[in-house]
Amino acid sequence: MNISIDRRGPVPIARQIQGELERLIRDRRLGPGTKLPASRELARVLGVNRETVVLAYEELVAAGWARAHVGQGTFVAERAGVAGTEAPEGDPASRGLDWSTLFSRSSQIVALGDERRRASIPPGPAGGWLISFAGGMPDSGLFPTDAFRRVLNQVVRDEGAALLQYAPVSGYRPLRQYLAGYLLRAGLEARPEEILVVNGSQQGFDLIARTLVDPGDAVAIEQPTYPRSVEVFRSFGARLVGVPWDEQGPRADILERVLERQGVKLFACQPSAHNPTGLSIEPGRRRGLLELAARQQVPIVEDGFDASLSWGPRPAVPLKAADRDGVVIYVGTFSKILFPGLRLGWIVAPRPVVERLGAAKQLADLHTSALLQAAVHRFCERRLLDRHAARVAREYGQRRRALLGALARHMPPGVTWTEPQGGFSLLVTLPGEARAVELLPRALERGVAFTPGEAFFLDGGESTLRLSFSAVEGGRIEEGIRRLAAALLDLDARPARARGGERAVVPLV
Amino acid sequence: MNISIDRRGPVPIARQIQGELERLIRDRRLGPGTKLPASRELARVLGVNRETVVLAYEELVAAGWARAHVGQGTFVAERAGVAGTEAPEGDPASRGLDWSTLFSRSSQIVALGDERRRASIPPGPAGGWLISFAGGMPDSGLFPTDAFRRVLNQVVRDEGAALLQYAPVSGYRPLRQYLAGYLLRAGLEARPEEILVVNGSQQGFDLIARTLVDPGDAVAIEQPTYPRSVEVFRSFGARLVGVPWDEQGPRADILERVLERQGVKLFACQPSAHNPTGLSIEPGRRRGLLELAARQQVPIVEDGFDASLSWGPRPAVPLKAADRDGVVIYVGTFSKILFPGLRLGWIVAPRPVVERLGAAKQLADLHTSALLQAAVHRFCERRLLDRHAARVAREYGQRRRALLGALARHMPPGVTWTEPQGGFSLLVTLPGEARAVELLPRALERGVAFTPGEAFFLDGGESTLRLSFSAVEGGRIEEGIRRLAAALLDLDARPARARGGERAVVPLV
Repeated sequence: MNISIDRRGPVPIARQIQGELERLIRDRRLGPGTKLPASRELARVLGVNRETVVLAYEELVAAGWARAHVGQGTFVAERAGVAGTEAPEGDPASRGLDWSTLFSRSSQIVALGDERRRASIPPGPAGGWLISFAGGMPDSGLFPTDAFRRVLNQVVRDEGAALLQYAPVSGYRPLRQYLAGYLLRAGLEARPEEILVVNGSQQGFDLIARTLVDPGDAVAIEQPTYPRSVEVFRSFGARLVGVPWDEQGPRADILERVLERQGVKLFACQPSAHNPTGLSIEPGRRRGLLELAARQQVPIVEDGFDASLSWGPRPAVPLKAADRDGVVIYVGTFSKILFPGLRLGWIVAPRPVVERLGAAKQLADLHTSALLQAAVHRFCERRLLDRHAARVAREYGQRRRALLGALARHMPPGVTWTEPQGGFSLLVTLPGEARAVELLPRALERGVAFTPGEAFFLDGGESTLRLSFSAVEGGRIEEGIRRLAAALLDLDARPARARGGERAVVPLV
Repeated sequence: MNISIDRRGPVPIARQIQGELERLIRDRRLGPGTKLPASRELARVLGVNRETVVLAYEELVAAGWARAHVGQGTFVAERAGVAGTEAPEGDPASRGLDWSTLFSRSSQIVALGDERRRASIPPGPAGGWLISFAGGMPDSGLFPTDAFRRVLNQVVRDEGAALLQYAPVSGYRPLRQYLAGYLLRAGLEARPEEILVVNGSQQGFDLIARTLVDPGDAVAIEQPTYPRSVEVFRSFGARLVGVPWDEQGPRADILERVLERQGVKLFACQPSAHNPTGLSIEPGRRRGLLELAARQQVPIVEDGFDASLSWGPRPAVPLKAADRDGVVIYVGTFSKILFPGLRLGWIVAPRPVVERLGAAKQLADLHTSALLQAAVHRFCERRLLDRHAARVAREYGQRRRALLGALARHMPPGVTWTEPQGGFSLLVTLPGEARAVELLPRALERGVAFTPGEAFFLDGGESTLRLSFSAVEGGRIEEGIRRLAAALLDLDARPARARGGERAVVPLV
């Protein structure tokens, strides 16, 4: 593909790429249905930022020159450049709508994000031979399923008819009252009126994005970070600006420059049990970030993690616990400490913000199932959550130690990793030019899976990989890391440069 | 308030109103914290469309001159017109963020819509003395709670650990397979891959809006209609264009003109069991609407209702059953036929659309609880839904007949009403200048409630009221209508004009 770019001219590079691609499509050098190169691939070829190529592709799709197919890539549209809509043929199938011209800009962004995300999703939880460090979820083998069945049965018996009727959007009040006490144990003071129950933290991010982000707004995001919250902000039209972590947390000096220059609407981060690294922001850095947010009038969105699952010398305190100025919106979830499948989480924020988020939730889905809320409340109230949390914290703590020990024993020199203070995972960095997406097929051959780290970065991160220890039985961790070390030797034996074409296979893994 | 408008000048009227209000605020004639008049009130005073005032208020809020408080109204901002953000005082409380300047445009629209909606929500379901025709929900006294408790218990026992783990966004496959067969009975052919499980029909509308609507797009909506779907489209920045019903359905000739002129993105309607009227679109009109949609390449979003709950001579067939060109997106729900509180619904659409909607759902909340889906599937598979549907259809059918009989016996001459062919409600029209919001306080004094019809119209509908019969025990319907007739006589005895101030009380009811 012959694309020329003028780096010194006044035309933005994304626009130039878009124009060049339109020309190639118009001239039929790229025929209808042709798959465009992966954005990362093209970015490398052209020597530009991947975001630039993504933007060019989005514009191309928005203008109807190309279509983004979920999980497959971006393709030249079948009718690209055909002006107007010709009368359809007699065949009913062909009379259908040309949906590709109808999708919203948000939907195009989501589809592209979906594609990017899928490209780095290896197989799911471990089963049989494969040992998978890829699943960042709790181990369903540890679920207190039977205890939950009993409380579920009880609440339906006691108040089923009321719980199965429409319910207030703010959430089941006894659960919000319980949460107020639960959060207080971790140092976070919140009245029930400052808590909104949502369908897991994902809906929390979604409601926050709707309520605070207008198309074109800038949103500052720690780097690396959990990618799905990033995608939510992007889908509402935000420009994302990365703020890199150092060993103490997201760099306050860089955040300050970003806030001053870019008109940022909010800053999103995971102060405790950071995914993928497992690190926590140091106390001094926390104070600096909070002061900066208050001074610049920019809210911080805190992706919280259960304090019970912390491994460091200090218990994992929410950033919001130190939030005297009311600048933090805290997003919590039962997905890690209890069951992901309930889709039950909550937001803590100042009252006017909770009211706005509640109004957004009412339009999004009226309310969260009161039945599930009541069952979880009963479960918590009977102290079953505390008992369960203590049990899984012990187990996950052992798995974490097993993983750190195995890495120390088997990883070749030059490989480094974070020491998680909370959460379910850590981040490994490979030495030199080794790339995680090239390691993955070799690892799978040897029966071990992980998540390539680049999924957690807006840009870069190719040499990193996330290992989640939560869903791997303790006894298999050593063997998994042994296999990973062997795969690393394979990678050295057959260096990356010799096999440029192999990257395209990864999305199908 | 002294507002002058130039109707012939080049400046849009909304912009003029906004400018006048800004002037009044700047001059401190409207001091900080002052409540602005209700949009409907100001529209009446100025002799303009209510939408125009709403737009002026939205702009005022967006510019920071005013704040919209959920459920309370629009108020002059405390710091309106103060340029820049002064350094905060020492008091921590005052150092907090000025959130009102941070909310997105979507959030402002939602808050205003919320306010409008609350203004016409009377007290909830009937309890004690009050007989309420206001609740458009199923009667929780008829819920099959115990049967559901048993299947819930079984599915947790059989597959709890899997159901409580993360699950695919598309939904629990056995439920989608069941739905394919269930819909086929109503004439709607859909493969499981064309079905997406969502959190009730409200989430269905939300995902459709995200996937198809860009800010500024026009969306055509039948008039009257269910207001919450309207609010969703509005919150995504859509301009709404009303298409009035006649006795056969939404007027195809008007829709055609609207589609030709306004660049409409979709048309939304409830073809069967229309809320609030209970009417169904006639077969001829259905064909006309489908042909028009295919010709103009505009999707129809069908808000479906369970075919079991139909009262007319013809069974209520979904519009999508006759959709040969794949132009209809069907939204279904278990909220009316089973339990609203589960928040369980589904969308049927062509495969590429379902994929896009699924990608949007993944960002919105990852997936719907697999546990609840599996329980409902078990309930359906055991034919418990069929049995329940037959039982409630009998009961609701009797309530419908009781309501129609009581209206015929007690309503004074000049009052008319629709004869519902499906659903839970009908629409009453008062004669002359009688207004439902003025009737409501008198009706509540006499112990009967209803929903003023204007909530279902973009504009107008003041003389209409919705009566829902589903949640009123059959034996109390006659007495309720007797009370309503007496309240109507009160209204005649003290004509509306004499009490202009009373309108403001209604939002607090």
